[in-house]
Amino acid sequence: MSNFGFDQLCVVNPYEKAFREAKSAVGAADLLAHAKEFPTVAEAVAGCSLVVGTTAVRHRELHHTVRRLEPAARLIKKHSLSNNVALLFGSEKYGLSNDDMSHCNWLLRIPTIDRNISMNLGQAVAVCLYELIREGRTITKEKTTLKLASAEEMERITTLLLDVLHGSGFLKRRQVSDAYARIRRVVRRLNWPERDATVWTGMLRQILWKLRKGGPPEG
Amino acid sequence: MSNFGFDQLCVVNPYEKAFREAKSAVGAADLLAHAKEFPTVAEAVAGCSLVVGTTAVRHRELHHTVRRLEPAARLIKKHSLSNNVALLFGSEKYGLSNDDMSHCNWLLRIPTIDRNISMNLGQAVAVCLYELIREGRTITKEKTTLKLASAEEMERITTLLLDVLHGSGFLKRRQVSDAYARIRRVVRRLNWPERDATVWTGMLRQILWKLRKGGPPEG
Repeated sequence: MSNFGFDQLCVVNPYEKAFREAKSAVGAADLLAHAKEFPTVAEAVAGCSLVVGTTAVRHRELHHTVRRLEPAARLIKKHSLSNNVALLFGSEKYGLSNDDMSHCNWLLRIPTIDRNISMNLGQAVAVCLYELIREGRTITKEKTTLKLASAEEMERITTLLLDVLHGSGFLKRRQVSDAYARIRRVVRRLNWPERDATVWTGMLRQILWKLRKGGPPEG
Repeated sequence: MSNFGFDQLCVVNPYEKAFREAKSAVGAADLLAHAKEFPTVAEAVAGCSLVVGTTAVRHRELHHTVRRLEPAARLIKKHSLSNNVALLFGSEKYGLSNDDMSHCNWLLRIPTIDRNISMNLGQAVAVCLYELIREGRTITKEKTTLKLASAEEMERITTLLLDVLHGSGFLKRRQVSDAYARIRRVVRRLNWPERDATVWTGMLRQILWKLRKGGPPEG
């Protein structure tokens, strides 16, 4: 991160509390000292309107669009002109869980060979960030980029939608065990413009209120 | 190396004899087992017609041409079509010595930021090899284009949403004269994946059913 000029490290529930003193990080002491810790992925990505997960997996049943690193980086660079982007990496050993991934808009994969797709975490991060700064970071300004809703706003919509789906009996009826992650993915697959986030929140609140109030519909 | 399909590791006078058992090298045991040891750089690169050194240094008195990684990789790839190429990395701590460099035809540098040019060895190797295989030795066709819902499906969602908004009192209360067009625009601004259209339709139907049925919510 330090080598390529990225300075905002967020760590979710770090296994090793000593990560701030990591010895190998020549020149990165400052970055580690300012790393932010969060108890959940949702909180870590709250301020971002695009969350991209990283995965080695290709053929597993992924519920997300998976993009190869190069086209992925182009999209990320474009998006980052006017919005915050989070790159989400899993643990060295297990990668991202399904629940972690449900917070992602889509996934990227590094073009490793099929025989060995599992990368060292530090190397995977280095390769992704290199691809982002390659050709220089000064990307020509592009206008007309739509400002998108933040992860926090998307999570608010998700939570309200879940309440509504419970209230209406939709979720109970289906008995989907991973319903929460599933709904979160469904919501993340849409591109929510920031300007509409409050409209949707308002609609869902009203529906929820009505469902809870019960009684025959008015009008 | 293993991730990107490179399999010929030569080690010069290894400091740590245990490198063959390096634990972190998931999937690379074979590569390490077959690594060749040499007492000198000269012997290690003997079979190569192009030797490229890697350096973080820019302004030191270098006696070599220094190329940025991207153009360097293009030259290396071209050369490797018919010749053996060696990429020479120095030790983590000191990099390549002047003597090491004297075996090189030219040098490459990774485009790190000026504030921190010193990279972790494993990460530097990963980034260089990624740049060499980027664009694919054999780029496999991957389609990442998301199939989007048709206008018909979007209109179905719109109509259901309007019914739900009426049922919940959202629309009546607001008295927005152009509500229909507004909701239609709001729906169209999202990119609905085709695969999710029926999910959303199902959710909205259930909510509508519950709103019309009235009565206290179940559960």
